[in-house]
Amino acid sequence: MLPVTKPTLLLDKEKCLRNISRMAEKARRHHVRFRPHFKTHQSHEIGRWFREYGVEAITVSSLSMARYFAADGWNDITVAFPANVHEYELINKLAGKINLNLLVESPAVVRMLQERVHQPLGLFIKVDSGYHRTGVDPSDKPLIDSLLLEIKNAAFSFRGFITHAGHSYKARSRNEIEKIHRSSLEIMRSVKEYYQSKYPDVLISVGDTPSCSVLEDFTGVDEVRPGNFVFYDVTQSIIGSCLLDEVAVCMACPVVSTHRQRNEVVIYGGSVHFSKDSVTENGRVLFGKVVRLSEDGWLVEPTTLFVKSLSQEHGIIGGSAEEIKSIEEGDVLGILPVHSCLTADCMGEYLTTQGEVVRHFRYRPG
Amino acid sequence: MLPVTKPTLLLDKEKCLRNISRMAEKARRHHVRFRPHFKTHQSHEIGRWFREYGVEAITVSSLSMARYFAADGWNDITVAFPANVHEYELINKLAGKINLNLLVESPAVVRMLQERVHQPLGLFIKVDSGYHRTGVDPSDKPLIDSLLLEIKNAAFSFRGFITHAGHSYKARSRNEIEKIHRSSLEIMRSVKEYYQSKYPDVLISVGDTPSCSVLEDFTGVDEVRPGNFVFYDVTQSIIGSCLLDEVAVCMACPVVSTHRQRNEVVIYGGSVHFSKDSVTENGRVLFGKVVRLSEDGWLVEPTTLFVKSLSQEHGIIGGSAEEIKSIEEGDVLGILPVHSCLTADCMGEYLTTQGEVVRHFRYRPG
Repeated sequence: MLPVTKPTLLLDKEKCLRNISRMAEKARRHHVRFRPHFKTHQSHEIGRWFREYGVEAITVSSLSMARYFAADGWNDITVAFPANVHEYELINKLAGKINLNLLVESPAVVRMLQERVHQPLGLFIKVDSGYHRTGVDPSDKPLIDSLLLEIKNAAFSFRGFITHAGHSYKARSRNEIEKIHRSSLEIMRSVKEYYQSKYPDVLISVGDTPSCSVLEDFTGVDEVRPGNFVFYDVTQSIIGSCLLDEVAVCMACPVVSTHRQRNEVVIYGGSVHFSKDSVTENGRVLFGKVVRLSEDGWLVEPTTLFVKSLSQEHGIIGGSAEEIKSIEEGDVLGILPVHSCLTADCMGEYLTTQGEVVRHFRYRPG
Repeated sequence: MLPVTKPTLLLDKEKCLRNISRMAEKARRHHVRFRPHFKTHQSHEIGRWFREYGVEAITVSSLSMARYFAADGWNDITVAFPANVHEYELINKLAGKINLNLLVESPAVVRMLQERVHQPLGLFIKVDSGYHRTGVDPSDKPLIDSLLLEIKNAAFSFRGFITHAGHSYKARSRNEIEKIHRSSLEIMRSVKEYYQSKYPDVLISVGDTPSCSVLEDFTGVDEVRPGNFVFYDVTQSIIGSCLLDEVAVCMACPVVSTHRQRNEVVIYGGSVHFSKDSVTENGRVLFGKVVRLSEDGWLVEPTTLFVKSLSQEHGIIGGSAEEIKSIEEGDVLGILPVHSCLTADCMGEYLTTQGEVVRHFRYRPG
């Protein structure tokens, strides 16, 4: 058994490599560039595993994360987040060293970047393909024209159109994912067609994990940017992007208290470890799924056990009387996280099932 | 204006000191020991502020946190979490140096501690006074007797009975808080009375922020352990524990995108900064309340603006057309967090409104 005395984020390297390999192979098959999003693992070491699969360009979600990966030799990075003009000093520093792409959706932001950034910069126009979180309305051609004009005036490089069909996270079947993916692709292709004569090198970049995991139609797409697939999680298994057995990270949490009269046990592992995302499955809200820890990893087996709530350091496990009865104080339970990106960010490091410690960007000495 | 380029946790030291002072004064007035819970601020420096108010003994929620504060000279620490037997090495190390109290609720755990811990150790029996998260059923005298016997056999020191009436967090009025507090106190007093002849030094320790903030009856209580009050947050203001103006921490987040057609703006500030707790007020789920940043802090003013959702790095602000229209990319918004303990834990450091950086236990170099 791995040396677990407190909440520990286990990483099954083999599962992780299989997830990377499968996605890299799919991108190759479809002749689209694979620019994986590194916001899920946020780790130099795991980043290096991608190089073995031919990955040379990456996506991150903040300028600080770009700096972290640039420091490990990545020199082609897209920050898939609306450009934050306050960080112009870091933008200048990075853009002077690597091929840095930012996302814009407002002419005012391009003007502010022009005033403050004096290095070559690639810009993608963020398009809202249905998620309605960020991005320009693809039918608003005057806005897009004005963005293109500002980009030209500023002498930045226009790279293309980028979207994140994050509404696929609400899907619960292959059909639903397909419907979202198809409508998002249609929007992106029609924007590309509209501007292609004037901008022959315009790229289309898409990339949510559900669509990239499940579907095979990437016609017109130049680049995919999935991120979560590197680990997957309980939410992705419920969406239908993966099997539970493909989830590559698992929390190991000691049982500290048992309450058989209400079919609950308490683990050391709370919202400072898992974060506090939840997912609803068959009308039940859950914060994690329980698996059995083994000598060198974990086994996904049928079980009634699940994480029913989280407070700061406590997690409450519910389940059948019979299964709860079999758990004792001092046992260590495996928990597949609901949202692996947030759990990894909270934990700040991984323990591989081979016993090696792997650091996260936001490692916490405490 | 404070130098904010990315999500930053501001701390108003004056508000914080007033919160500490008010609670210390209340404990003094009621002749109960003030053993504040440090899990909210988790900071050496903020911990030192408590010393000025006569605080000598503290509460924490993990053994790692106990080690962190012991390193700053605190030598009387209760870990208000069911004892985790796997961490016996750290228990031995700490208990050899300071007065360390742990919580137990199972005879099996006391036996495991006896086998592994060879230093003086204080034990509280955790009592479930209605929250139903952890603790022994106060009517289960055979279980309590058996715990007391094991503690005696192990030659640990029995300190008393401890509870956390965490169900007060579900209260939404002074009356509801009072009802929970009264019933919790009754339970604790009756347990104390039952065992006092045999254990004349038995202590009663209680301590949720709502009850300690609002109520004045602490009859029979020896010690209070509130924690959140040091900062308070939006949830506590909705419960009725504090005014919004007493909340001592505020996130400062740059606006990166505006979407007037749907009355939303996007901030740089997501679940890796705030964590992902939410609270429901008047049927509306919210992840934070917007305040106006000023030269040296923030102002709580009437507003329709609130955080309506969070993803990993993005926060979505909703509000009236008029207020949304007044916000531009590059503005910086103040956001009072829904749950200050989790936000502080995610952020790992504070910037005081005087411009001083204050580190959190789980400081993140990234």
